[in-house]
Amino acid sequence: MQRAPERLSSGEIAVWRKFLRAHATVVRQLEADLLGAHSLPLASYDVLVQLVEAPEHKLRMTELADAVLLSRSGLTRLVDRLEREGLVTREACVSDARGLFAVLTQAGYDRLRSATGTHLRGVSELVVSKLDPEDLAALDRAMDKLLS
Amino acid sequence: MQRAPERLSSGEIAVWRKFLRAHATVVRQLEADLLGAHSLPLASYDVLVQLVEAPEHKLRMTELADAVLLSRSGLTRLVDRLEREGLVTREACVSDARGLFAVLTQAGYDRLRSATGTHLRGVSELVVSKLDPEDLAALDRAMDKLLS
Repeated sequence: MQRAPERLSSGEIAVWRKFLRAHATVVRQLEADLLGAHSLPLASYDVLVQLVEAPEHKLRMTELADAVLLSRSGLTRLVDRLEREGLVTREACVSDARGLFAVLTQAGYDRLRSATGTHLRGVSELVVSKLDPEDLAALDRAMDKLLS
Repeated sequence: MQRAPERLSSGEIAVWRKFLRAHATVVRQLEADLLGAHSLPLASYDVLVQLVEAPEHKLRMTELADAVLLSRSGLTRLVDRLEREGLVTREACVSDARGLFAVLTQAGYDRLRSATGTHLRGVSELVVSKLDPEDLAALDRAMDKLLS
């Protein structure tokens, strides 16, 4: 349901701020958990997840940037770091001379596998276990509307 | 309502991912709007808002770091930048030789004032106008639970 932009009430601003604070608090803890147990920043974890879910464990750099919501230059720096760690390689794209794929390596797969338990336990404890099914359904609906 | 951490369902993971994606999409657009119209990154805007709302328009660096959810070193870099732009100054704390305040300047106040319309219009259009009062109330409850 769309309504014309108008002055926001203090209650509406308070909900928006709470949304930002809850996001930051949860993400900060998830990042601390991954760094502490696996020396893996959350953004790196996200890249590895996108690659493991892609056909042949590879994605064009442009697709990967969209999937993890990073700028092209931000993703390039991140993939540089992952490549130095041996978790990802770059591969030329046969059909497009300028195209480059990022490809998950076996080491990247193993690292992701060991980190996934930590991460999902965090999402469960910090998010899902705190919400009723009704809360989750309402959150789902609200996020759909923000994304529409 | 708390339940024991357990395997997450694909639906629960999907809601979590949607939450992340909605947050990133909205924040990215708000940042683009502020940068485009006022050359002000969202993190800088947040710092100026915290200062304008504080008594005497000043906060200890540690309080400010907590308020904007940045690490101490991240906040130091950000305040360095704001100080170079003349939007904030640092002031020694009389009662604590090691303490430093960040203080909003008149230029910072003016910059914030001109950026606030852009930002609140964005929050209204991208978030509040897309949600029913019931969605907002449900979101508020869910975020309270995540922060508890």
